[in-house]
Amino acid sequence: MGRSSDAREKILASAQSLIELRGYTALGVAEICKAAGVPKGSFYYFFESKEALALAVLDEHWKAQRGNWARVLQDDAEPLLRLRRLFEETEASLRAGQQSCGTVSGCMFGNLTLELSNQTEPIRKRLQQIFDAQVEMVEKVIAEARERGEAAVGDAREAARSIVAQLEGQVLFAKLYNDAQHLEALWANCLSLLSARHPDEAAISS
Amino acid sequence: MGRSSDAREKILASAQSLIELRGYTALGVAEICKAAGVPKGSFYYFFESKEALALAVLDEHWKAQRGNWARVLQDDAEPLLRLRRLFEETEASLRAGQQSCGTVSGCMFGNLTLELSNQTEPIRKRLQQIFDAQVEMVEKVIAEARERGEAAVGDAREAARSIVAQLEGQVLFAKLYNDAQHLEALWANCLSLLSARHPDEAAISS
Repeated sequence: MGRSSDAREKILASAQSLIELRGYTALGVAEICKAAGVPKGSFYYFFESKEALALAVLDEHWKAQRGNWARVLQDDAEPLLRLRRLFEETEASLRAGQQSCGTVSGCMFGNLTLELSNQTEPIRKRLQQIFDAQVEMVEKVIAEARERGEAAVGDAREAARSIVAQLEGQVLFAKLYNDAQHLEALWANCLSLLSARHPDEAAISS
Repeated sequence: MGRSSDAREKILASAQSLIELRGYTALGVAEICKAAGVPKGSFYYFFESKEALALAVLDEHWKAQRGNWARVLQDDAEPLLRLRRLFEETEASLRAGQQSCGTVSGCMFGNLTLELSNQTEPIRKRLQQIFDAQVEMVEKVIAEARERGEAAVGDAREAARSIVAQLEGQVLFAKLYNDAQHLEALWANCLSLLSARHPDEAAISS
């Protein structure tokens, strides 16, 4: 079982890299197994289909990303500064990916949403859960900022969705122009969307 | 040549529908020809490759959309209201697509950006040109609004890019949740991103 479990990890890791580079549709099970260095029989021992693998890749990727988001967004820094750090870390992670594979491959969740969400209901549902969770994490930070009088928004959930939408839109541009710098607009845009003042200015005037 | 030209149109129309529904990678030339009702030989008479077809589909689609954007954005209505109409028309068009094919298929340019822009340079370049043109059209409207004192932004191009990013992000959510209503947030977000007042309020207070 030691070896088998290792094979599952290898398949997941190869599938994640390949999906990030080339999307889901372009990949075949044989190619994934070849990249993972495992026999094709192992694949069907762990995953009943390519779709089942995609769901497992989404879960793994979200487990890691959720950990990062929680570390940043549930920190005890000022709420708005936590959002800024989220944008900075996302930009840094796009840059790291670009350095390792030559191009900005974007956000796997956004990529698969546009590639697949109108075609397979299980993947659509999983992506909805992931984006719902992202929006909820951002919403809590906005609600905290609002309580402190640092953001003036009526509906914190709606505002959180707009911030995640802005993030996905700028990541789309980063991928299109192969330039992570597009994410630098996020912080100022976030302050505008939240009718918030720059925390440093707020600190000076308080 | 009459018949041939008709075949080219049929191939383009079928390819556009199929790409909107299922993306680019999933399609084969044979399937496109079958849907268009033309022999496969015709395909290679008009297009040297599937990629050449995709570029032609992008051009056709942008030609039509650019016409719509120009009609709305170069109108003589108040600048900010033109942006509002752009969002409303985009939402209406997503709804119309959803009624005809059952799901919101999103923005073809956004879909192909996330599916392909890191994989094929000719398609990346064409999509860059299209998004550059969209941003430029929005930028001109923002500059007009700024001249009239209705928007307070430093860099009109950067602001235009953020508005197009917000549009793409909310279209992503519309596709994910199969619900065009996500676009309703665009107008209020646009006003926030432009530090603009609602034009009706501006009219009342002036």
